[in-house]
Amino acid sequence: MNIVVVLFDGVTALDAVGPYEVLTRLPGASVVFAATEPGVKRTDHGLGLTADVALREVPAPEVLLVPGGPGQVAAMDDVELRDWLRAADATSTWTTSVCTGSLLLAGAGLLTGKRATSHWLALDELARLGAVAVAERVVVDGRHVTSAGVSAGIDMALELAGRMHGALVAQAVQLSLEYDPAPPYDAGSPQKAPAEVVELVRSRSPRR
Amino acid sequence: MNIVVVLFDGVTALDAVGPYEVLTRLPGASVVFAATEPGVKRTDHGLGLTADVALREVPAPEVLLVPGGPGQVAAMDDVELRDWLRAADATSTWTTSVCTGSLLLAGAGLLTGKRATSHWLALDELARLGAVAVAERVVVDGRHVTSAGVSAGIDMALELAGRMHGALVAQAVQLSLEYDPAPPYDAGSPQKAPAEVVELVRSRSPRR
Repeated sequence: MNIVVVLFDGVTALDAVGPYEVLTRLPGASVVFAATEPGVKRTDHGLGLTADVALREVPAPEVLLVPGGPGQVAAMDDVELRDWLRAADATSTWTTSVCTGSLLLAGAGLLTGKRATSHWLALDELARLGAVAVAERVVVDGRHVTSAGVSAGIDMALELAGRMHGALVAQAVQLSLEYDPAPPYDAGSPQKAPAEVVELVRSRSPRR
Repeated sequence: MNIVVVLFDGVTALDAVGPYEVLTRLPGASVVFAATEPGVKRTDHGLGLTADVALREVPAPEVLLVPGGPGQVAAMDDVELRDWLRAADATSTWTTSVCTGSLLLAGAGLLTGKRATSHWLALDELARLGAVAVAERVVVDGRHVTSAGVSAGIDMALELAGRMHGALVAQAVQLSLEYDPAPPYDAGSPQKAPAEVVELVRSRSPRR
């Protein structure tokens, strides 16, 4: 199972690393990080993640995973990336995204008329790009699987793990990662967070 | 607030990136990734994470974060790392770990007699290294904060965020990351996972 995680400068690290940590543990999985030009990509807060290959070297992954992050805005103008996404999607078994990675898929025309999701602050933009935007954590529409903001990629990858390899394998990966979440607050969605928290986050977003 | 995340070859990516994604969003936070020798470190499944500085360049962080992973075994023998941990811990505000990172802290003598945790498969080893090992997701003993396997670092970092900056800031970070976990299975701890899943994971571990 060849899996390509797309990188670009300004990607959000956890968008990529959360699902990577799940998918790389699946039987027969081979995960590579790829970018238009290989090398170290700097995430939105500075961590360097290495893209080991160029996208053009891995034209036909079985699973493609597109993370989001502020760099998505510039990545929308990367014609080589857009063309690669279209070609890879044409033969992929699963085309997936985390957070605003769905905007890259939608911008390439790959989510038109499909149910899909994104970071809660980007759902309007996702709809403008032609998707049927829904505020759910993981959305499966055929072989297109999109997930909500940043941390949602972990849940998405476990969902994929179960669909690809069954519940036993997916649960074993979950246990290996000790993914038994217990956040000290219950503020992870705009429906659950206090209004002042929602307003604070919205006021700091370029998408407010 | 100077925060140093320790890297080494064979680290588990999510151990480092989960809490990084939280801590880097805190007001005034400056996070650097550091290793005995700087450069690209390869995680246990191959992803390259960049250590931008040498440990010796950042001798006195306010927060130090030690991730785990299979590379922890070799890192236990890194005398420079051990000495750095001891010196950094002497002046840190918070000394923290994720997963088997606590074994590195314990191996340096920093958890002796303290309540601490680790990946569920490593609790016995943690106890042998002198800590009072407990099976909890996040353990705070004074200024030493340890967390369970891999994904638990996200919860630990949110706990730290609240203690350092208050609930409003911590909740804002949680909402930014849309950390409203909804795993499709409930198998994230050995108490919750089916027995056959626990046995499968245990049988594949070098710590079984």
